Amino acid sequence: MLYIIGLGLGDDKDITLKGLEAVKKCERVYIEAYTSLLSFGLSSNGLSTLEDLYGKPLIVADREMVEESVDDMLYEAREFGVAFLVVGDPFGATTHTDLVVRAKKLGVEVKVIHNASVVNAIGVCGLQLYRYGEIVSIPFFTETWRPDSFYEKICTNRLHGLHTLCLLDIRVKEPSIESLCRGKKCYEPPKFMTIQNAIEQLLEVEQMRGESAYSEEATCVGFARLGSEDQVVVAGSMRELVNVEFGSPLHCLVIVGKTHPVEEEMLDFYTIRPKSL
Amino acid sequence: MLYIIGLGLGDDKDITLKGLEAVKKCERVYIEAYTSLLSFGLSSNGLSTLEDLYGKPLIVADREMVEESVDDMLYEAREFGVAFLVVGDPFGATTHTDLVVRAKKLGVEVKVIHNASVVNAIGVCGLQLYRYGEIVSIPFFTETWRPDSFYEKICTNRLHGLHTLCLLDIRVKEPSIESLCRGKKCYEPPKFMTIQNAIEQLLEVEQMRGESAYSEEATCVGFARLGSEDQVVVAGSMRELVNVEFGSPLHCLVIVGKTHPVEEEMLDFYTIRPKSL
Repeated sequence: MLYIIGLGLGDDKDITLKGLEAVKKCERVYIEAYTSLLSFGLSSNGLSTLEDLYGKPLIVADREMVEESVDDMLYEAREFGVAFLVVGDPFGATTHTDLVVRAKKLGVEVKVIHNASVVNAIGVCGLQLYRYGEIVSIPFFTETWRPDSFYEKICTNRLHGLHTLCLLDIRVKEPSIESLCRGKKCYEPPKFMTIQNAIEQLLEVEQMRGESAYSEEATCVGFARLGSEDQVVVAGSMRELVNVEFGSPLHCLVIVGKTHPVEEEMLDFYTIRPKSL
Repeated sequence: MLYIIGLGLGDDKDITLKGLEAVKKCERVYIEAYTSLLSFGLSSNGLSTLEDLYGKPLIVADREMVEESVDDMLYEAREFGVAFLVVGDPFGATTHTDLVVRAKKLGVEVKVIHNASVVNAIGVCGLQLYRYGEIVSIPFFTETWRPDSFYEKICTNRLHGLHTLCLLDIRVKEPSIESLCRGKKCYEPPKFMTIQNAIEQLLEVEQMRGESAYSEEATCVGFARLGSEDQVVVAGSMRELVNVEFGSPLHCLVIVGKTHPVEEEMLDFYTIRPKSL
């Protein structure tokens, strides 16, 4: 049996009782280091906190492992209980659909234990989840690669008065260009897009495309470390948020659509300069 | 301090360790009976299971209480720890934004403990969460009240190739018409919309509006008791799903947009007649 278990967003205590019971009865426990592990405060130190909680060692499944030797894990899961731990929800912002498909093809039974993910936890800012349109991803621009397919999606959402959740790029364990050339495995340090970076790219694209999907006056909500004890949520215009110090990753950004009065009241609590002043 | 704690979707074991710790240290614990409590398998029997787990009595906060005497709860939360338990995530399909706004206005500190909700758990069917458009609600039609504002939203989503999550109506503790007339408080029995009912209404509206937003051949995914041990997920056309016995509530429905190959592979596992046959 393969258990795919969501760890939630904050720390080791965000696992569910059901998730913890499953981990405890599994013979082998993998933890995905692939996408957002660092956001979970999991330094090597944090890993041992988890190992203490679970009472067993963790195998860090990094990107290479997931891409290259995931079948070994699935063969194990045919013989005994294997847990695969995922930050957030197993099918949250990053999906593990492919893993499930491979498991099912190998005849491995799969059980999913859900948890919170960014996609629902953003509700904390007061914007109603049923007033969001399509989610967009903002990738790191490079000198030569500046994809802006998010722009049209934001246009469409705003046309319909909908909010847009922007997921910001994460680069973990990317092979360095130098290492690719030399055929050795060396990695770039992990890189997380900040809200500031995202807004700069958004405004650059608006200037290029000029369809007035948004401007630097557009109201947004910036989230850092959503779901953690030290989460930061700030509402303001793009121009204002670009100057806010949100601190360490992960960051995400919501571009606000048309709001209802209850939404506005709630946003007020997070606004840099509340209307009530 | 007011803790608003998500219980997740399945049963008593879906609370997080953090949530359980908070409940244990609160002096008073309310549980919302307002929207989807019955979906949680919480007969009076289930309630005592929770009370055993928490080691303290629960106060059921029904609709009346939430609407009429919520301030009493908030005054308590100024003096000592109060937990307010919510099925799913506090800001999931149903929101508790208003409660937070009132709390903050009364100077009550609020702490939210997230959990899974329908909005992310639907990821289990393999359709990517970032390929969903606006969520729609399908209300029970009556003889005289047949609101169809969901139709245009589905149109827009399908035009952009996006999936649509349809949340199906729940009627709990509605005053009966007879009781309204007599000035006494009597309630209709709780009523949960089934997938069959939803599809019938959807097709009725399509026939009226005739803009070909979908047809009875449209691929959908039906979910019953999502996140529970006995959840049912079936993919098929509207025509097929209308004949599937999904069993007890809650139900929800996804109208599938344009799919990618990995999404299709995964949907296949849930399809009434898999393509591979």
